[in-house]
Amino acid sequence: MQLAKPIHVKSLAERFTLKLAGNEDLWITGINEIHKVRRGDLIFVDAPKYYAKSLQSAASCILIPEAVSCPEGKTLLICDAPFEIYNQLVQENRPRRTQRTVISDTAWIHPTATVEANAIIGHFAVVGANSIIGANAVIGEFTVIGNGVTIQPGAIIGTDAFYYKKTAQGYRKWRAGGRVVIHDDVEIGAGCTINKGVSGDTVIGRGTKLDCQVHIGHGAVLGQNCLLAAQVGIAGKTVVGDRVVMYGQVGVAQNLTIGDDVTLYAKSGVGKDLEAGKTYFGAPCGEAREMMREMAALRNLARGQQHKPPSGAH
Amino acid sequence: MQLAKPIHVKSLAERFTLKLAGNEDLWITGINEIHKVRRGDLIFVDAPKYYAKSLQSAASCILIPEAVSCPEGKTLLICDAPFEIYNQLVQENRPRRTQRTVISDTAWIHPTATVEANAIIGHFAVVGANSIIGANAVIGEFTVIGNGVTIQPGAIIGTDAFYYKKTAQGYRKWRAGGRVVIHDDVEIGAGCTINKGVSGDTVIGRGTKLDCQVHIGHGAVLGQNCLLAAQVGIAGKTVVGDRVVMYGQVGVAQNLTIGDDVTLYAKSGVGKDLEAGKTYFGAPCGEAREMMREMAALRNLARGQQHKPPSGAH
Amino acid sequence: MQLAKPIHVKSLAERFTLKLAGNEDLWITGINEIHKVRRGDLIFVDAPKYYAKSLQSAASCILIPEAVSCPEGKTLLICDAPFEIYNQLVQENRPRRTQRTVISDTAWIHPTATVEANAIIGHFAVVGANSIIGANAVIGEFTVIGNGVTIQPGAIIGTDAFYYKKTAQGYRKWRAGGRVVIHDDVEIGAGCTINKGVSGDTVIGRGTKLDCQVHIGHGAVLGQNCLLAAQVGIAGKTVVGDRVVMYGQVGVAQNLTIGDDVTLYAKSGVGKDLEAGKTYFGAPCGEAREMMREMAALRNLARGQQHKPPSGAH
Repeated sequence: MQLAKPIHVKSLAERFTLKLAGNEDLWITGINEIHKVRRGDLIFVDAPKYYAKSLQSAASCILIPEAVSCPEGKTLLICDAPFEIYNQLVQENRPRRTQRTVISDTAWIHPTATVEANAIIGHFAVVGANSIIGANAVIGEFTVIGNGVTIQPGAIIGTDAFYYKKTAQGYRKWRAGGRVVIHDDVEIGAGCTINKGVSGDTVIGRGTKLDCQVHIGHGAVLGQNCLLAAQVGIAGKTVVGDRVVMYGQVGVAQNLTIGDDVTLYAKSGVGKDLEAGKTYFGAPCGEAREMMREMAALRNLARGQQHKPPSGAH
Repeated sequence: MQLAKPIHVKSLAERFTLKLAGNEDLWITGINEIHKVRRGDLIFVDAPKYYAKSLQSAASCILIPEAVSCPEGKTLLICDAPFEIYNQLVQENRPRRTQRTVISDTAWIHPTATVEANAIIGHFAVVGANSIIGANAVIGEFTVIGNGVTIQPGAIIGTDAFYYKKTAQGYRKWRAGGRVVIHDDVEIGAGCTINKGVSGDTVIGRGTKLDCQVHIGHGAVLGQNCLLAAQVGIAGKTVVGDRVVMYGQVGVAQNLTIGDDVTLYAKSGVGKDLEAGKTYFGAPCGEAREMMREMAALRNLARGQQHKPPSGAH
Repeated sequence: MQLAKPIHVKSLAERFTLKLAGNEDLWITGINEIHKVRRGDLIFVDAPKYYAKSLQSAASCILIPEAVSCPEGKTLLICDAPFEIYNQLVQENRPRRTQRTVISDTAWIHPTATVEANAIIGHFAVVGANSIIGANAVIGEFTVIGNGVTIQPGAIIGTDAFYYKKTAQGYRKWRAGGRVVIHDDVEIGAGCTINKGVSGDTVIGRGTKLDCQVHIGHGAVLGQNCLLAAQVGIAGKTVVGDRVVMYGQVGVAQNLTIGDDVTLYAKSGVGKDLEAGKTYFGAPCGEAREMMREMAALRNLARGQQHKPPSGAH
C-alpha cells in the first residue's frame, strides 16, 4: 500500500525509540510485505532465514531484530518486535471504519451505475459506469469496480485477508492494507467472496466471468477473459493468466502461477505452477491425458487382481 | 420462455430485414435454446454442425446464417448474426428491471407466508402458503416458490445463468429468460445459490432438501425427496431423479441424467449419466464397490513396491 | 437443550395419554437426542436396534413404542409415535419466532461491540465485548458470540440443522433446539455458514479462524486455535481438536473425531477418525507420506504399461 503522506525514517526511529542504521535521510512512501515490495517501501523481517531476501529486496527500509550489515542506501530500524510496529503503521494508515450506512458517504458511484436494494457500498469504494451491484451484495472498503461490471446479488467483495501471524498467544491478524480491483466487463456470481490483498491488490482482469460461490484469496491476480465455474477456489497471491478456464470445484493453492489458456477439469486440485495452453485434471492435477492413463492403469490392475486365479489352480 | 404476445414471422423479417424461407404465416409463441425447444418456438443456430439438429427439432422458426432447405411447415429467417437477434428478442420480452425496493410491487406473497427482515422478493416472484423466506435471503425475478417451503437466511435464488457466447471481442452474456421453480415442502439451506434457466426453468422437486452452500446451475431439474448435503454443486441442465442422496461436496457436470435412488458418497465427481438405484464414489466416480477395489489394489501395489528387495539381492 | 421449566413425567403421560413404566416421580430437565444426552433428559427411540443403547444411556426418560423392561430409576413412556411427541416438545420449548426486525429486542449486545449496516441479530442472541458483526451478516436465534470475535460480512450463523426423519410421507424436519456458541477471539470469514445443533451446541473454540465459505454442520465442536481455509466443510457432530489446520476445500464426514495438531492438505476427504499430530492427504485421506507413495506407484504403473513392448517384439 502507498502512504498518503511519506514518513521520514528519523521520525519513526524517534517515535518508537529504535536504533537506526544506514541511510539516515530516507522518506518511506509505502508499506508492504516482502511479496509485493517496491522501492521506497518499508517492510519487516523477524526470522533470520529471511534476512538475506529482505535486505536484497526492493525495500528501502527494513524493520529487523538485529543490527546486521546494511546495504548501501537502505535504512535498518532495529527493534524487538518488527511485526508489531509494521502492523501498527498499517492500521494507522488504514484505520478500520465501521460500515454504519448502506452506502458510505466516501464511496463514489458513477451516475449510470445501478445499486440494488440493501447492497452495501463501503468506504472509499468506486463503482464505474453502467455497472450493476445486485441486491444484498457487499462491496467492501477501497474496492475499485470498473465499467460494465455486474456483481450478482449476495456476492461479498473486499473482505479481510485470511492472514495471521502465529505467536505464542495464538494467531495475530495482519491488518490488510490492500484492495480488490475489478476491471471492466467482469461478472461476479451470487455468493462469491473476494478477499482484499494484505498489502497489494487482488485483481480480476477485464472480461473475466465468475459463476456462483467462487472464492478468490488475498492478493490473487486473475487475467483477462477467464471463466471460473461454480465453487472454484483460488488461494492467496496466485497469478492466473488470460483465457484460463476452470470447471466446477477446482482448487488452486497459494503463490502459484497458472499460464495463459490453461484448462482445468472439474474438481482438479493445483499444487504447482501450470504451463500455458495445457489441459489438466486430478487432485493433485497432472496433464489430463496422463491422468486418464493412470486411471485406466488402475482400473486394469484392480480387474486383474480380481480375476487372478487362486495360486495352484493352473 | 413463453412470449406474452405471439410474434408473426413476417413482422420479424421486416423489422430486421431478414430473408424468409418456408412457412410465411407462422406465429411464434416462445423463444428457446435448442435443449428446451417446443413447437411454436423460435431458436437460433450459427454453426453448420448444428444445422441438422436444429432443423429437425420441435422448433417452428429458426434464425440461421444460410438459406438451407426448409422442413415442411417451418420458417427459416436468414441473417448474419442469429445470436444477436435471438438475444435482443429475449431482452425485449424479459427486460432487466432494477431491484430498488426490498419487496417488489409486482411480487405476490401468500398471506400466510413469512418474509423475514431484509429478505429481497424480486419482480413477479411468487411465494406460496406457509412458506418462510429467511432474513437477508434474495428471491430473484420470476421465481416461483410453492407451499410449505423454507428458504434459510442468506440463500440466493434466481440469479443469472452462467452462460456466455464466445466472440472475438470476449464473452457475450445470454439474457436468461428462464425461471427458478421450487415445489412444495422444499428446504433450501443458508448460502445456497440457484441460477435461473437460460430459456427453460430450473426446478427443485417436491420435498427435496438442500443443506447450506449448495449450488444449482441454470436449467437443472431435481426430482422429489432428494437430499443434497452441504457444498454440493450441480451444473447446468442436468436432470436428477427422485430420492437421490448426495453427500457433502459432490459435484455433477452439466447435461447429465442421474437416475432415481442414486446415492453419491462425499466428494464424488460425476462426469457421465448414472443408473438408478446404484451407489457411486470417486472423482471421476464409479460404482462404489469397484472404486473400493481400485483403492485396495493401489494400496497393495504401493506396499509391494515398498517392500520389494533391491534387484540382485536374491 | 435444557428446559426453562422442568416437566413431570406424569403430566406428560396424562397429556398425551401414554402408558408409563418405571419411575413415576421424575422431573424431566432437558430434551436431547441420543448423541448429546445427560441425566434428567428425555429422549426418544423408535427402532428396536437402538433400544439397548437408549435404555443404557444417561437419559432419565425414554419415549419408546414398546413396553420393554425398564432400567432402575428411569421412566419409560410408551407411545406409537415417539418422534412426534419429542419434536412437539422441542417446538413448544423453542417456538419458531419470525425475525421481523434487523436487531431483535431480545438480543443482548455489549456496548463495545460493533454491528454494521443490515446485519441481523436474532432473538436471544448474545454478542460480547469488542466483537464486530459485519455488514449483511446473519446471527441466528440463541447464538452466543464471545469477546473480540469478528464475523465478516455476509456470514450466516445459527441456521437450522440439516436433520430430517425419513417417513413414508417424505422427510420430516427435526426442530433444532441447540445453539451456536463462538468463543473469544474467533474470526468467521465472509459467506460462512454454521448450523445450530439439533439438541446440543455447535461450538467454535477460542482463537480459531475460518476463511470464507466454510461450512460447519449441526453440533460440530471445533477446538482452540484451529485454522480452516476457504470452502472447508465439517459435517454434523464431528469433534475437531486444538491447533488443527485444514487447507482449502477439505471435507470431514459426520460423527468423527479429529485429534489435536492434525494437518489436512487441500481437498482431503475424511471418512474416519484421525490421530493427533499427523498429516493427512487424499479423498478418502490417508497419512500424507503413504498417499504420496501410492501416487508414485500409480504413476510408475501407468508409465510401465505405456512403454511395455507389444508381446512378441522381443
